[in-house]
Amino acid sequence: MALIVQKYGGTSVGSVDRIRNVAKRVAHFHRQGHRLVVVVSAMAGETNRLLGLARELAAQPDPRELDVVAATGEQVTIGLLTIALKELGLDAKSYTGAQVRILTDSAHTKARILDIDQAKLRGDLDAGRIVVVAGFQGIDAEGNVTTLGRGGSDTSGVALAAALGADECQIYTDVDGVYTADPRIVPEARRLDRITFEEMLELASQGSKVLQIRSVEFAGKYMVRLRVLSSFDEVGAQGPGTLITYEEDQAMEEAIISGIAFNRDEAKISVMGVPDRPGIAYAILGPIAEANIDVDMIVQNIGASGHTDFSFTVNRGEYRKALEVLEAQRGKQFEARELIGDHRIAKVSVVGIGMRSHVGLASRMFKTLADEGINIQMISTSEIKIAVVIDEKYLELAVRVLHKAFELEKDGSGATQV
Amino acid sequence: MALIVQKYGGTSVGSVDRIRNVAKRVAHFHRQGHRLVVVVSAMAGETNRLLGLARELAAQPDPRELDVVAATGEQVTIGLLTIALKELGLDAKSYTGAQVRILTDSAHTKARILDIDQAKLRGDLDAGRIVVVAGFQGIDAEGNVTTLGRGGSDTSGVALAAALGADECQIYTDVDGVYTADPRIVPEARRLDRITFEEMLELASQGSKVLQIRSVEFAGKYMVRLRVLSSFDEVGAQGPGTLITYEEDQAMEEAIISGIAFNRDEAKISVMGVPDRPGIAYAILGPIAEANIDVDMIVQNIGASGHTDFSFTVNRGEYRKALEVLEAQRGKQFEARELIGDHRIAKVSVVGIGMRSHVGLASRMFKTLADEGINIQMISTSEIKIAVVIDEKYLELAVRVLHKAFELEKDGSGATQV
Repeated sequence: MALIVQKYGGTSVGSVDRIRNVAKRVAHFHRQGHRLVVVVSAMAGETNRLLGLARELAAQPDPRELDVVAATGEQVTIGLLTIALKELGLDAKSYTGAQVRILTDSAHTKARILDIDQAKLRGDLDAGRIVVVAGFQGIDAEGNVTTLGRGGSDTSGVALAAALGADECQIYTDVDGVYTADPRIVPEARRLDRITFEEMLELASQGSKVLQIRSVEFAGKYMVRLRVLSSFDEVGAQGPGTLITYEEDQAMEEAIISGIAFNRDEAKISVMGVPDRPGIAYAILGPIAEANIDVDMIVQNIGASGHTDFSFTVNRGEYRKALEVLEAQRGKQFEARELIGDHRIAKVSVVGIGMRSHVGLASRMFKTLADEGINIQMISTSEIKIAVVIDEKYLELAVRVLHKAFELEKDGSGATQV
Repeated sequence: MALIVQKYGGTSVGSVDRIRNVAKRVAHFHRQGHRLVVVVSAMAGETNRLLGLARELAAQPDPRELDVVAATGEQVTIGLLTIALKELGLDAKSYTGAQVRILTDSAHTKARILDIDQAKLRGDLDAGRIVVVAGFQGIDAEGNVTTLGRGGSDTSGVALAAALGADECQIYTDVDGVYTADPRIVPEARRLDRITFEEMLELASQGSKVLQIRSVEFAGKYMVRLRVLSSFDEVGAQGPGTLITYEEDQAMEEAIISGIAFNRDEAKISVMGVPDRPGIAYAILGPIAEANIDVDMIVQNIGASGHTDFSFTVNRGEYRKALEVLEAQRGKQFEARELIGDHRIAKVSVVGIGMRSHVGLASRMFKTLADEGINIQMISTSEIKIAVVIDEKYLELAVRVLHKAFELEKDGSGATQV
């Protein structure tokens, strides 16, 4: 009947028992007559263990060789899952990224998928076989093993669904869908039955860990029907999860605010008292980009007496490196009175497609935080989200009060109209 | 100067520190101007861990998928070693079996090498690069991952040396050469500077764990100059190890007996009271071969009153299966009074090229064992070895007294002339 791509993350395949459970779940769908491509991650903890070995040998391991090492994690899982499927009497076959021929560019550790050869997989599917594919990995034109970077298995799943024209791409994870906020912080948080592509994109990029951002972008580009589900539901009693929709006309029926996202993996750097002249942003961020450090939020304050202050956030793991790069360039590329860094920050975002047509949401957000005495350090907005940087210690409080302020606990309505 | 293939086993690469040491050793040879191909095994314990995961999922895991899982062990090591080499400032590049294109047949878990594409490796060597290749694995004509079976990394090393026409294939292990007996059992055991190919073959097949039998066969076929060395010697103070020679005319100068080998991984099965008629051996062993069980020693005693007893040994891991196969066939393929199995046996062999021209060695062996009250259960001989099966509990004693009886502790002479 339907052609379904299912992706199971590291927690879902984190032990032999869990792999056996995934096999039962796959078997259940197969019995219903679906044609199945199953994409898997490395067993939970395995990628970190492998990268840890490499980092014991070199502070900056060679990226090509790092990929050779890291790609083995998923290869183990495809073999084990296929063994489990065969033990259930099903016909199944595993493929590494290289064996499918998931062609990527040569940007080791963060390669991008260029093309997928679907001929072999199609042959197996036509023969009634379940196809098990290693996520996170591919091969470049020269035959080198590549990996897509963290969370890349989601992207593999979506890319395979796009290439095969699958009816649905199901991302199985340890939560049963996309929530209005992290339920560990906001117990009243509610699962969303559906969410628009744009909202999902903002939630993913704003630190909601459910789906990896590039996979959402990929899904949007090829209009892949994407669903987030729990791999811990009883087999046969699978919840509906959260469906990512593309129908623009549904937007009006959707809640104004769909959720609160947060991210505590960032650090803030402020360059104080730089000359307020054209080109200063490039003078500061150019060397950062050259050092391959991703910048997230950028804020430039209005200057006084010909000087201005310039702030941006980076991934916390690259915070020290970013500061070093700036110290090295200060006095050469740009003059600055002071460099200030802070890694005890958190970013909190309110996301909702309804923002497009509803004003006053920002001020409600700011008032809610002010009422709790939470100082806002940076603000950044897009059409459908408002993100603020605050002191890390207020993170949970901020998420909870915003969730309440926008009445996200109420079923059917994301937030009251302003 | 020379083109050398070095192979490092699981113990030699068993930890990050040991991998770092292997890198230093490789660097030392590289500085001397040698061109190097380095073949590595999985880190010690890793293959067992991976196979254990698979066996938790199925008693008889699918062989193709077992290879997919097992091959990751060596892939991790090639990446890590290459990272360590680059950290030392050397140019190096890793290859999986598939990336080299080590073409094998499709006999998963015990594939045989058919061909090696040396073009890419040659290009790297010409560019001054150290090439690091995953042992134990290859790829079949359909692109499936294959493995060569236990100890297959030795075979990979020798096969690469043959394909590249290397000047020497060095097998690094946790001992500093081939000994007249296992030094853990016989403290007086002595390292042999050289040993003939035929003796090495008998020692390897008789259970000396230094070299894997197929690698020795392969070396003989292509006349690869093979040397066994320790990877635990100080870098720069490498011992000479043991060289495997092919010069027939040296045989006369060699010791008569080169060593005592043993194997406790076997089990004995006796089929008692079978009709003494043509075809009975095939009737018994045919089903065993069909079940893919390797048989080692075979002995048929002289029968009385039209009946005979038939005994053979199998790998201890296949003992139960072999008994089941025979029980199923008994009464159909052959009649038998009784099936008797014993897995508490050991095989002890005396090996030496001098046996060809010296008589009385067998009787000296039998007398030595008799003097200690050790009963011989089975005997099998070849041109250059005598193997006996005894009760496992006498194994260490037997090896020690035989070592002494043949005066193997004396330097320069393997055994006194009889």
